[in-house]
Amino acid sequence: MAKPEQISSPNNPLLKDVRRAIGRGTLTSEGLLVAETFHLLEEALRSELEVRLVLAAAGVLSAVESHVRGLRGVRVAVVPDIMFPQLGSLDSPQGVISLVRPPEWKLENVFGGKPLVVALDGVQDPGNAGAIVRAAEAFGASGVLFLKGTVSPYNPKTVRASAGSLFRQPFLAGLDPELAKAAFQQRKMRLYAADPLGEMALARADLRPPTVLVIGSEAHGVGHTLRQGSRKLRIPTQGVESLNAALAAAVLLYEALRQRSSS
Amino acid sequence: MAKPEQISSPNNPLLKDVRRAIGRGTLTSEGLLVAETFHLLEEALRSELEVRLVLAAAGVLSAVESHVRGLRGVRVAVVPDIMFPQLGSLDSPQGVISLVRPPEWKLENVFGGKPLVVALDGVQDPGNAGAIVRAAEAFGASGVLFLKGTVSPYNPKTVRASAGSLFRQPFLAGLDPELAKAAFQQRKMRLYAADPLGEMALARADLRPPTVLVIGSEAHGVGHTLRQGSRKLRIPTQGVESLNAALAAAVLLYEALRQRSSS
Repeated sequence: MAKPEQISSPNNPLLKDVRRAIGRGTLTSEGLLVAETFHLLEEALRSELEVRLVLAAAGVLSAVESHVRGLRGVRVAVVPDIMFPQLGSLDSPQGVISLVRPPEWKLENVFGGKPLVVALDGVQDPGNAGAIVRAAEAFGASGVLFLKGTVSPYNPKTVRASAGSLFRQPFLAGLDPELAKAAFQQRKMRLYAADPLGEMALARADLRPPTVLVIGSEAHGVGHTLRQGSRKLRIPTQGVESLNAALAAAVLLYEALRQRSSS
Repeated sequence: MAKPEQISSPNNPLLKDVRRAIGRGTLTSEGLLVAETFHLLEEALRSELEVRLVLAAAGVLSAVESHVRGLRGVRVAVVPDIMFPQLGSLDSPQGVISLVRPPEWKLENVFGGKPLVVALDGVQDPGNAGAIVRAAEAFGASGVLFLKGTVSPYNPKTVRASAGSLFRQPFLAGLDPELAKAAFQQRKMRLYAADPLGEMALARADLRPPTVLVIGSEAHGVGHTLRQGSRKLRIPTQGVESLNAALAAAVLLYEALRQRSSS
Protein backbone atom coordinates (compact mmCIF):
# COMPACT_ATOMS: atom_id res chain seq x y z
CA MET A 1 0.00 0.00 0.00
CA ALA A 2 1.47 3.32 -1.08
CA LYS A 3 1.25 6.51 0.98
CA PRO A 4 -2.25 7.98 0.61
CA GLU A 5 -2.78 10.72 -1.93
CA GLN A 6 -4.55 13.90 -0.89
CA ILE A 7 -7.56 15.25 -2.75
CA SER A 8 -8.66 18.71 -1.75
CA SER A 9 -10.74 20.10 -4.60
CA PRO A 10 -14.34 19.07 -5.29
CA ASN A 11 -13.44 19.59 -8.97
CA ASN A 12 -10.86 16.84 -8.86
CA PRO A 13 -11.51 14.72 -12.00
CA LEU A 14 -11.69 11.48 -10.02
CA LEU A 15 -14.34 12.85 -7.67
CA LYS A 16 -16.32 14.18 -10.62
CA ASP A 17 -16.15 10.75 -12.25
CA VAL A 18 -17.38 9.03 -9.06
CA ARG A 19 -20.22 11.53 -8.61
CA ARG A 20 -21.24 10.97 -12.23
CA ALA A 21 -21.24 7.17 -11.83
CA ILE A 22 -23.38 7.43 -8.68
CA GLY A 23 -25.74 9.98 -10.20
CA ARG A 24 -26.27 8.01 -13.42
CA GLY A 25 -26.17 4.59 -11.82
CA THR A 26 -23.29 3.27 -13.91
CA LEU A 27 -19.64 2.21 -13.72
CA THR A 28 -16.96 4.91 -13.60
CA SER A 29 -15.36 5.99 -16.88
CA GLU A 30 -12.62 3.42 -16.15
CA GLY A 31 -15.19 0.66 -15.82
CA LEU A 32 -15.05 0.36 -12.04
CA LEU A 33 -17.88 -0.45 -9.62
CA VAL A 34 -18.61 2.14 -6.92
CA ALA A 35 -19.07 0.60 -3.46
CA GLU A 36 -20.09 3.06 -0.74
CA THR A 37 -19.76 1.30 2.63
CA PHE A 38 -17.15 -0.41 4.80
CA HIS A 39 -19.21 -3.59 4.53
CA LEU A 40 -18.94 -3.54 0.74
CA LEU A 41 -15.19 -2.95 0.92
CA GLU A 42 -14.92 -6.02 3.16
CA GLU A 43 -17.15 -8.01 0.81
CA ALA A 44 -15.09 -7.00 -2.23
CA LEU A 45 -11.91 -8.12 -0.46
CA ARG A 46 -13.37 -11.43 0.73
CA SER A 47 -14.70 -12.03 -2.78
CA GLU A 48 -11.10 -11.57 -4.01
CA LEU A 49 -11.98 -8.80 -6.42
CA GLU A 50 -9.43 -6.19 -7.36
CA VAL A 51 -9.99 -3.05 -5.27
CA ARG A 52 -8.30 -0.36 -7.32
CA LEU A 53 -8.77 2.68 -5.15
CA VAL A 54 -10.43 3.67 -1.91
CA LEU A 55 -11.58 7.23 -1.26
CA ALA A 56 -11.39 7.78 2.49
CA ALA A 57 -12.67 10.68 4.54
CA ALA A 58 -9.79 12.01 6.65
CA GLY A 59 -11.69 11.05 9.81
CA VAL A 60 -11.80 7.34 8.96
CA LEU A 61 -8.46 7.04 7.17
CA SER A 62 -6.95 4.74 9.77
CA ALA A 63 -9.97 2.41 9.63
CA VAL A 64 -9.66 2.29 5.83
CA GLU A 65 -5.92 1.66 6.04
CA SER A 66 -6.43 -1.23 8.44
CA HIS A 67 -8.74 -2.83 5.87
CA VAL A 68 -6.27 -2.65 3.00
CA ARG A 69 -2.98 -2.98 4.88
CA GLY A 70 -0.65 -5.45 3.24
CA LEU A 71 -2.64 -5.53 0.01
CA ARG A 72 -0.63 -4.68 -3.06
CA GLY A 73 -1.88 -2.22 -5.64
CA VAL A 74 -4.67 -0.64 -3.59
CA ARG A 75 -4.45 3.13 -3.84
CA VAL A 76 -5.94 5.20 -1.02
CA ALA A 77 -6.95 8.84 -1.55
CA VAL A 78 -7.89 11.07 1.36
CA VAL A 79 -10.82 13.44 0.91
CA PRO A 80 -11.79 16.15 3.44
CA ASP A 81 -14.65 14.89 5.65
CA ILE A 82 -16.83 17.81 4.66
CA MET A 83 -16.85 16.77 1.00
CA PHE A 84 -18.27 13.29 1.60
CA PRO A 85 -21.97 14.09 1.92
CA GLN A 86 -21.90 15.64 -1.58
CA LEU A 87 -19.94 12.75 -3.03
CA GLY A 88 -22.08 9.70 -2.43
CA SER A 89 -25.72 8.67 -2.35
CA LEU A 90 -26.03 7.64 1.31
CA ASP A 91 -28.06 9.60 3.87
CA SER A 92 -25.37 8.74 6.41
CA PRO A 93 -22.12 8.49 4.45
CA GLN A 94 -19.49 6.29 6.08
CA GLY A 95 -16.53 8.18 4.62
CA VAL A 96 -15.42 5.34 2.39
CA ILE A 97 -15.99 4.74 -1.33
CA SER A 98 -14.20 1.84 -3.00
CA LEU A 99 -13.67 1.48 -6.73
CA VAL A 100 -13.74 -2.20 -7.58
CA ARG A 101 -13.00 -4.08 -10.81
CA PRO A 102 -16.28 -5.88 -11.58
CA PRO A 103 -16.10 -9.64 -12.10
CA GLU A 104 -16.58 -10.85 -15.68
CA TRP A 105 -18.91 -13.76 -16.31
CA LYS A 106 -19.76 -15.87 -19.32
CA LEU A 107 -23.04 -17.51 -20.25
CA GLU A 108 -21.64 -20.87 -19.02
CA ASN A 109 -21.20 -19.38 -15.55
CA VAL A 110 -24.79 -18.17 -15.36
CA PHE A 111 -26.08 -21.55 -16.59
CA GLY A 112 -23.62 -23.60 -14.54
CA GLY A 113 -24.37 -26.85 -12.71
CA LYS A 114 -28.07 -27.72 -12.56
CA PRO A 115 -29.19 -24.33 -13.76
CA LEU A 116 -31.55 -22.14 -11.80
CA VAL A 117 -31.52 -18.72 -13.47
CA VAL A 118 -33.30 -15.54 -12.43
CA ALA A 119 -34.05 -13.32 -15.43
CA LEU A 120 -34.85 -9.70 -14.54
CA ASP A 121 -37.07 -8.37 -17.31
CA GLY A 122 -37.55 -4.67 -16.72
CA VAL A 123 -37.07 -4.42 -12.94
CA GLN A 124 -36.40 -0.69 -12.41
CA ASP A 125 -35.69 -0.35 -8.72
CA PRO A 126 -32.00 -0.91 -7.90
CA GLY A 127 -32.95 -1.87 -4.34
CA ASN A 128 -35.15 -4.67 -5.65
CA ALA A 129 -32.57 -5.81 -8.22
CA GLY A 130 -29.79 -5.92 -5.63
CA ALA A 131 -31.94 -7.76 -3.09
CA ILE A 132 -32.78 -10.34 -5.78
CA VAL A 133 -29.08 -10.94 -6.47
CA ARG A 134 -28.59 -11.44 -2.73
CA ALA A 135 -31.47 -13.93 -2.61
CA ALA A 136 -30.15 -15.66 -5.75
CA GLU A 137 -26.83 -16.31 -4.07
CA ALA A 138 -28.49 -17.27 -0.77
CA PHE A 139 -30.76 -19.88 -2.37
CA GLY A 140 -28.14 -21.30 -4.71
CA ALA A 141 -29.27 -19.94 -8.08
CA SER A 142 -26.70 -20.47 -10.81
CA GLY A 143 -26.97 -16.91 -12.11
CA VAL A 144 -28.91 -13.72 -12.77
CA LEU A 145 -29.68 -12.12 -16.14
CA PHE A 146 -30.30 -8.37 -16.27
CA LEU A 147 -32.22 -8.22 -19.57
CA LYS A 148 -32.33 -5.10 -21.73
CA GLY A 149 -34.52 -2.44 -20.11
CA THR A 150 -33.62 -3.50 -16.56
CA VAL A 151 -31.75 -1.31 -14.07
CA SER A 152 -27.98 -1.72 -14.28
CA PRO A 153 -26.25 -4.26 -12.01
CA TYR A 154 -23.46 -1.67 -11.83
CA ASN A 155 -25.73 0.98 -10.28
CA PRO A 156 -24.13 1.69 -6.88
CA LYS A 157 -27.58 1.24 -5.30
CA THR A 158 -27.91 -2.22 -6.87
CA VAL A 159 -24.48 -3.14 -5.53
CA ARG A 160 -25.40 -1.88 -2.07
CA ALA A 161 -28.73 -3.73 -1.93
CA SER A 162 -26.94 -6.92 -2.99
CA ALA A 163 -24.87 -6.60 0.22
CA GLY A 164 -21.88 -7.93 -1.71
CA SER A 165 -23.58 -10.83 -3.52
CA LEU A 166 -23.02 -8.98 -6.79
CA PHE A 167 -19.29 -9.55 -6.25
CA ARG A 168 -19.79 -13.33 -6.35
CA GLN A 169 -23.05 -14.30 -8.04
CA PRO A 170 -22.62 -14.88 -11.81
CA PHE A 171 -24.63 -12.37 -13.86
CA LEU A 172 -24.88 -10.85 -17.32
CA ALA A 173 -26.28 -7.43 -18.22
CA GLY A 174 -28.01 -5.93 -21.25
CA LEU A 175 -29.00 -9.23 -22.89
CA ASP A 176 -31.77 -9.00 -25.47
CA PRO A 177 -34.88 -10.99 -24.40
CA GLU A 178 -35.01 -12.82 -27.77
CA LEU A 179 -31.42 -13.97 -27.38
CA ALA A 180 -32.02 -14.99 -23.80
CA LYS A 181 -35.04 -17.02 -24.88
CA ALA A 182 -32.99 -18.80 -27.52
CA ALA A 183 -30.37 -19.65 -24.88
CA PHE A 184 -33.09 -21.07 -22.59
CA GLN A 185 -34.58 -23.16 -25.39
CA GLN A 186 -31.20 -24.48 -26.47
CA ARG A 187 -30.67 -25.72 -22.91
CA LYS A 188 -34.21 -27.11 -22.70
CA MET A 189 -34.92 -25.02 -19.60
CA ARG A 190 -38.40 -24.57 -18.15
CA LEU A 191 -39.47 -20.95 -18.29
CA TYR A 192 -41.69 -19.59 -15.52
CA ALA A 193 -42.90 -15.99 -15.47
CA ALA A 194 -43.92 -14.65 -12.06
CA ASP A 195 -47.47 -13.37 -12.48
CA PRO A 196 -49.97 -12.52 -9.71
CA LEU A 197 -52.76 -13.70 -12.04
CA GLY A 198 -50.89 -16.75 -13.35
CA GLU A 199 -52.74 -20.00 -14.01
CA MET A 200 -50.24 -22.25 -12.22
CA ALA A 201 -50.02 -22.11 -8.42
CA LEU A 202 -46.48 -22.28 -7.07
CA ALA A 203 -47.23 -25.47 -5.13
CA ARG A 204 -47.96 -27.24 -8.46
CA ALA A 205 -44.73 -26.22 -10.20
CA ASP A 206 -41.80 -28.63 -10.38
CA LEU A 207 -38.73 -26.42 -10.07
CA ARG A 208 -36.19 -29.26 -9.91
CA PRO A 209 -35.32 -29.48 -13.63
CA PRO A 210 -33.23 -26.69 -15.22
CA THR A 211 -35.40 -23.62 -14.60
CA VAL A 212 -35.63 -19.93 -15.44
CA LEU A 213 -37.64 -17.65 -13.13
CA VAL A 214 -38.59 -14.43 -14.92
CA ILE A 215 -39.29 -11.38 -12.74
CA GLY A 216 -40.94 -8.51 -14.59
CA SER A 217 -41.00 -4.77 -13.99
CA GLU A 218 -42.74 -3.45 -10.87
CA ALA A 219 -45.28 -1.56 -12.99
CA HIS A 220 -45.84 -3.74 -16.06
CA GLY A 221 -44.79 -7.28 -15.20
CA VAL A 222 -42.95 -9.60 -17.58
CA GLY A 223 -42.45 -8.34 -21.14
CA HIS A 224 -44.08 -9.73 -24.29
CA THR A 225 -41.16 -11.85 -25.51
CA LEU A 226 -40.76 -13.91 -22.36
CA ARG A 227 -44.48 -14.03 -21.56
CA GLN A 228 -44.85 -16.05 -24.74
CA GLY A 229 -43.79 -19.60 -24.18
CA SER A 230 -43.53 -19.33 -20.41
CA ARG A 231 -45.81 -20.76 -17.75
CA LYS A 232 -47.38 -18.02 -15.63
CA LEU A 233 -46.58 -18.86 -12.04
CA ARG A 234 -48.72 -17.50 -9.23
CA ILE A 235 -47.56 -17.19 -5.62
CA PRO A 236 -50.68 -17.87 -3.55
CA THR A 237 -51.58 -14.56 -1.93
CA GLN A 238 -54.70 -12.78 -0.74
CA GLY A 239 -55.80 -9.16 -0.42
CA VAL A 240 -52.92 -7.61 -2.34
CA GLU A 241 -52.58 -7.05 -6.09
CA SER A 242 -49.05 -8.37 -6.07
CA LEU A 243 -45.95 -8.78 -3.96
CA ASN A 244 -42.91 -6.53 -4.17
CA ALA A 245 -40.68 -7.88 -7.00
CA ALA A 246 -37.81 -8.77 -4.66
CA LEU A 247 -40.09 -10.58 -2.20
CA ALA A 248 -41.71 -12.54 -5.02
CA ALA A 249 -38.28 -13.57 -6.32
CA ALA A 250 -37.15 -14.63 -2.84
CA VAL A 251 -40.22 -16.81 -2.34
CA LEU A 252 -39.77 -18.48 -5.76
CA LEU A 253 -36.08 -19.09 -5.09
CA TYR A 254 -36.78 -20.45 -1.61
CA GLU A 255 -39.37 -22.84 -3.03
CA ALA A 256 -36.96 -23.98 -5.78
CA LEU A 257 -34.25 -24.71 -3.21
CA ARG A 258 -36.78 -26.45 -0.94
CA GLN A 259 -37.83 -28.77 -3.76
CA ARG A 260 -34.29 -29.39 -4.91
CA SER A 261 -33.07 -30.18 -1.37
CA SER A 262 -35.83 -32.64 -0.54
CA SER A 263 -35.60 -34.56 -3.82
CA MET B 1 -67.16 17.16 -2.65
CA ALA B 2 -66.84 20.89 -2.03
CA LYS B 3 -65.19 23.30 -4.46
CA PRO B 4 -61.38 22.93 -4.17
CA GLU B 5 -59.53 25.39 -1.96
CA GLN B 6 -56.47 27.15 -3.33
CA ILE B 7 -53.13 27.12 -1.55
CA SER B 8 -50.52 29.45 -2.95
CA SER B 9 -47.93 30.01 -0.23
CA PRO B 10 -45.26 27.47 0.70
CA ASN B 11 -45.68 28.80 4.24
CA ASN B 12 -49.28 27.65 4.41
CA PRO B 13 -49.62 25.91 7.81
CA LEU B 14 -51.09 22.76 6.26
CA LEU B 15 -48.19 22.37 3.83
CA LYS B 16 -45.72 22.93 6.65
CA ASP B 17 -47.47 20.25 8.68
CA VAL B 18 -47.33 17.76 5.77
CA ARG B 19 -43.65 18.50 5.11
CA ARG B 20 -42.91 17.98 8.81
CA ALA B 21 -44.75 14.64 8.88
CA ILE B 22 -42.86 13.43 5.79
CA GLY B 23 -39.51 14.70 7.07
CA ARG B 24 -39.90 13.13 10.50
CA GLY B 25 -41.70 10.00 9.34
CA THR B 26 -44.79 10.51 11.50
CA LEU B 27 -48.49 11.35 11.33
CA THR B 28 -49.52 14.97 10.79
CA SER B 29 -50.32 17.08 13.85
CA GLU B 30 -53.97 16.09 13.37
CA GLY B 31 -53.07 12.42 13.46
CA LEU B 32 -53.45 11.75 9.75
CA LEU B 33 -51.45 9.39 7.54
CA VAL B 34 -49.64 10.93 4.57
CA ALA B 35 -50.09 8.95 1.35
CA GLU B 36 -48.11 10.25 -1.63
CA THR B 37 -49.35 8.47 -4.76
CA PHE B 38 -52.53 7.96 -6.78
CA HIS B 39 -52.26 4.26 -6.07
CA LEU B 40 -52.34 4.89 -2.31
CA LEU B 41 -55.34 7.20 -2.70
CA GLU B 42 -57.13 4.38 -4.53
CA GLU B 43 -56.06 1.87 -1.88
CA ALA B 44 -57.29 4.13 0.94
CA LEU B 45 -60.65 4.47 -0.79
CA ARG B 46 -61.04 0.75 -1.51
CA SER B 47 -60.03 0.03 2.10
CA GLU B 48 -62.92 2.31 3.15
CA LEU B 49 -60.73 4.59 5.22
CA GLU B 50 -61.68 8.20 5.75
CA VAL B 51 -59.75 10.38 3.29
CA ARG B 52 -59.85 13.79 4.93
CA LEU B 53 -58.05 15.94 2.44
CA VAL B 54 -56.22 15.57 -0.86
CA LEU B 55 -53.53 18.03 -1.90
CA ALA B 56 -53.54 18.13 -5.70
CA ALA B 57 -51.08 19.77 -8.05
CA ALA B 58 -53.04 22.04 -10.39
CA GLY B 59 -51.92 19.92 -13.35
CA VAL B 60 -53.59 16.75 -12.04
CA LEU B 61 -56.63 18.33 -10.35
CA SER B 62 -59.12 16.74 -12.69
CA ALA B 63 -57.60 13.27 -12.16
CA VAL B 64 -57.83 13.79 -8.39
CA GLU B 65 -61.41 15.02 -8.65
CA SER B 66 -62.42 11.97 -10.64
CA HIS B 67 -61.08 9.79 -7.82
CA VAL B 68 -63.08 11.50 -5.08
CA ARG B 69 -66.18 12.57 -7.02
CA GLY B 70 -69.36 11.76 -5.15
CA LEU B 71 -67.54 11.12 -1.87
CA ARG B 72 -68.78 13.20 1.03
CA GLY B 73 -66.43 15.07 3.32
CA VAL B 74 -63.29 14.83 1.16
CA ARG B 75 -61.64 18.24 0.93
CA VAL B 76 -59.45 18.96 -2.07
CA ALA B 77 -56.81 21.70 -1.97
CA VAL B 78 -54.97 22.81 -5.10
CA VAL B 79 -51.27 23.52 -4.86
CA PRO B 80 -49.19 25.06 -7.67
CA ASP B 81 -47.35 22.32 -9.61
CA ILE B 82 -44.02 23.93 -8.92
CA MET B 83 -44.39 23.49 -5.15
CA PHE B 84 -44.84 19.69 -5.27
CA PRO B 85 -41.22 18.55 -5.58
CA GLN B 86 -40.43 20.36 -2.31
CA LEU B 87 -43.48 19.00 -0.58
CA GLY B 88 -43.10 15.24 -0.70
CA SER B 89 -40.41 12.58 -0.55
CA LEU B 90 -40.75 11.10 -4.04
CA ASP B 91 -38.12 11.50 -6.75
CA SER B 92 -40.97 11.73 -9.26
CA PRO B 93 -43.86 13.34 -7.38
CA GLN B 94 -47.29 12.50 -8.82
CA GLY B 95 -48.90 15.73 -7.69
CA VAL B 96 -51.19 14.09 -5.16
CA ILE B 97 -50.86 13.77 -1.38
CA SER B 98 -53.78 12.31 0.58
CA LEU B 99 -54.29 12.73 4.30
CA VAL B 100 -55.96 9.60 5.61
CA ARG B 101 -57.41 8.73 9.01
CA PRO B 102 -55.39 5.68 10.11
CA PRO B 103 -57.35 2.58 11.09
CA GLU B 104 -57.39 1.76 14.80
CA TRP B 105 -56.73 -1.80 15.88
CA LYS B 106 -56.94 -3.68 19.14
CA LEU B 107 -54.81 -6.57 20.37
CA GLU B 108 -57.70 -8.95 19.53
CA ASN B 109 -57.50 -7.88 15.87
CA VAL B 110 -53.78 -8.58 15.66
CA PHE B 111 -54.24 -11.98 17.33
CA GLY B 112 -57.46 -12.83 15.48
CA GLY B 113 -58.40 -16.26 14.09
CA LYS B 114 -55.60 -18.80 14.18
CA PRO B 115 -52.96 -16.25 14.98
CA LEU B 116 -49.88 -15.73 12.84
CA VAL B 117 -48.21 -12.55 14.06
CA VAL B 118 -45.15 -10.78 12.68
CA ALA B 119 -43.31 -8.84 15.41
CA LEU B 120 -40.91 -6.20 14.08
CA ASP B 121 -38.23 -5.79 16.74
CA GLY B 122 -36.03 -2.88 15.72
CA VAL B 123 -36.47 -2.90 11.94
CA GLN B 124 -35.27 0.58 10.92
CA ASP B 125 -35.84 0.76 7.20
CA PRO B 126 -39.36 1.96 6.32
CA GLY B 127 -39.12 0.23 2.94
CA ASN B 128 -38.50 -3.10 4.66
CA ALA B 129 -41.22 -2.53 7.27
CA GLY B 130 -43.80 -1.61 4.65
CA ALA B 131 -42.89 -4.56 2.41
CA ILE B 132 -43.31 -6.85 5.42
CA VAL B 133 -46.82 -5.51 6.07
CA ARG B 134 -47.61 -6.16 2.40
CA ALA B 135 -46.29 -9.74 2.70
CA ALA B 136 -48.19 -10.21 5.98
CA GLU B 137 -51.46 -9.38 4.28
CA ALA B 138 -50.58 -11.43 1.19
CA PHE B 139 -49.81 -14.57 3.17
CA GLY B 140 -52.71 -14.25 5.59
CA ALA B 141 -50.96 -13.20 8.80
CA SER B 142 -53.37 -12.06 11.49
CA GLY B 143 -51.37 -8.94 12.34
CA VAL B 144 -48.10 -7.04 12.66
CA LEU B 145 -46.56 -5.61 15.82
CA PHE B 146 -44.20 -2.64 15.51
CA LEU B 147 -42.32 -3.03 18.80
CA LYS B 148 -40.66 -0.11 20.57
CA GLY B 149 -37.49 0.93 18.70
CA THR B 150 -38.92 0.01 15.30
CA VAL B 151 -39.59 2.50 12.48
CA SER B 152 -43.08 3.98 12.61
CA PRO B 153 -45.89 2.34 10.63
CA TYR B 154 -47.09 5.91 10.04
CA ASN B 155 -43.88 6.91 8.26
CA PRO B 156 -45.03 7.88 4.74
CA LYS B 157 -42.29 5.64 3.34
CA THR B 158 -43.62 2.67 5.32
CA VAL B 159 -47.11 3.37 4.00
CA ARG B 160 -45.80 3.57 0.46
CA ALA B 161 -43.78 0.35 0.66
CA SER B 162 -46.87 -1.43 2.04
CA ALA B 163 -48.62 -0.56 -1.26
CA GLY B 164 -51.82 -0.02 0.74
CA SER B 165 -51.68 -3.13 2.96
CA LEU B 166 -51.16 -0.84 5.95
CA PHE B 167 -54.72 0.40 5.37
CA ARG B 168 -56.12 -3.11 5.96
CA GLN B 169 -53.67 -5.31 7.86
CA PRO B 170 -54.19 -5.14 11.66
CA PHE B 171 -51.15 -3.68 13.44
CA LEU B 172 -50.10 -2.04 16.69
CA ALA B 173 -47.20 0.35 17.20
CA GLY B 174 -44.85 1.19 20.05
CA LEU B 175 -45.52 -1.94 22.13
CA ASP B 176 -42.91 -2.76 24.76
CA PRO B 177 -41.18 -6.11 24.02
CA GLU B 178 -41.85 -7.33 27.62
CA LEU B 179 -45.57 -6.64 27.26
CA ALA B 180 -45.65 -8.26 23.85
CA LYS B 181 -43.94 -11.33 25.27
CA ALA B 182 -46.50 -11.57 28.06
CA ALA B 183 -49.29 -11.37 25.47
CA PHE B 184 -47.68 -14.19 23.46
CA GLN B 185 -47.29 -16.39 26.54
CA GLN B 186 -50.85 -15.78 27.68
CA ARG B 187 -52.03 -17.02 24.28
CA LYS B 188 -49.58 -19.97 24.34
CA MET B 189 -48.08 -18.88 21.05
CA ARG B 190 -44.87 -20.33 19.66
CA LEU B 191 -42.19 -17.72 19.39
CA TYR B 192 -39.68 -17.96 16.53
CA ALA B 193 -36.88 -15.44 16.08
CA ALA B 194 -35.45 -15.19 12.56
CA ASP B 195 -31.72 -15.76 12.94
CA PRO B 196 -29.21 -16.57 10.16
CA LEU B 197 -27.26 -18.64 12.72
CA GLY B 198 -30.33 -20.22 14.34
CA GLU B 199 -30.24 -23.85 15.45
CA MET B 200 -33.59 -24.81 13.88
CA ALA B 201 -33.83 -25.06 10.08
CA LEU B 202 -37.05 -23.68 8.66
CA ALA B 203 -38.00 -27.05 7.16
CA ARG B 204 -38.11 -28.49 10.71
CA ALA B 205 -40.39 -25.83 12.21
CA ASP B 206 -44.12 -26.48 12.59
CA LEU B 207 -45.75 -23.12 11.90
CA ARG B 208 -49.35 -24.38 12.01
CA PRO B 209 -50.09 -23.67 15.71
CA PRO B 210 -50.51 -20.04 16.85
CA THR B 211 -47.16 -18.53 15.92
CA VAL B 212 -45.14 -15.34 16.30
CA LEU B 213 -42.36 -14.62 13.79
CA VAL B 214 -39.92 -12.07 15.20
CA ILE B 215 -37.90 -10.04 12.66
CA GLY B 216 -35.00 -8.11 14.20
CA SER B 217 -33.17 -4.99 13.13
CA GLU B 218 -31.13 -5.08 9.94
CA ALA B 219 -27.91 -4.39 11.89
CA HIS B 220 -28.36 -6.19 15.22
CA GLY B 221 -31.03 -8.85 14.77
CA VAL B 222 -33.68 -9.66 17.37
CA GLY B 223 -33.39 -7.87 20.73
CA HIS B 224 -32.52 -9.48 24.07
CA THR B 225 -36.07 -9.75 25.46
CA LEU B 226 -37.51 -11.72 22.56
CA ARG B 227 -34.36 -13.73 21.91
CA GLN B 228 -34.89 -15.26 25.34
CA GLY B 229 -37.56 -17.90 25.20
CA SER B 230 -37.77 -18.00 21.42
CA ARG B 231 -36.58 -20.68 19.03
CA LYS B 232 -33.94 -19.34 16.64
CA LEU B 233 -35.15 -20.12 13.16
CA ARG B 234 -32.74 -20.33 10.27
CA ILE B 235 -33.71 -19.95 6.62
CA PRO B 236 -31.38 -22.32 4.75
CA THR B 237 -29.02 -20.08 2.75
CA GLN B 238 -25.48 -20.21 1.46
CA GLY B 239 -22.78 -17.65 0.74
CA VAL B 240 -24.49 -14.64 2.34
CA GLU B 241 -24.39 -13.53 5.98
CA SER B 242 -28.13 -12.97 6.01
CA LEU B 243 -31.10 -12.10 3.86
CA ASN B 244 -32.66 -8.66 3.68
CA ALA B 245 -35.18 -8.38 6.58
CA ALA B 246 -38.18 -8.07 4.27
CA LEU B 247 -37.15 -11.04 2.14
CA ALA B 248 -36.60 -13.17 5.23
CA ALA B 249 -40.06 -12.25 6.54
CA ALA B 250 -41.66 -13.06 3.19
CA VAL B 251 -40.04 -16.50 3.07
CA LEU B 252 -41.14 -17.30 6.65
CA LEU B 253 -44.70 -16.13 5.95
CA TYR B 254 -44.84 -18.08 2.69
CA GLU B 255 -43.68 -21.23 4.48
CA ALA B 256 -46.25 -20.70 7.27
CA LEU B 257 -49.05 -20.34 4.74
CA ARG B 258 -47.78 -23.36 2.78
CA GLN B 259 -47.87 -25.51 5.91
CA ARG B 260 -51.24 -24.19 7.01
CA SER B 261 -52.80 -24.74 3.57
CA SER B 262 -51.59 -28.30 3.15
CA SER B 263 -52.59 -29.47 6.64
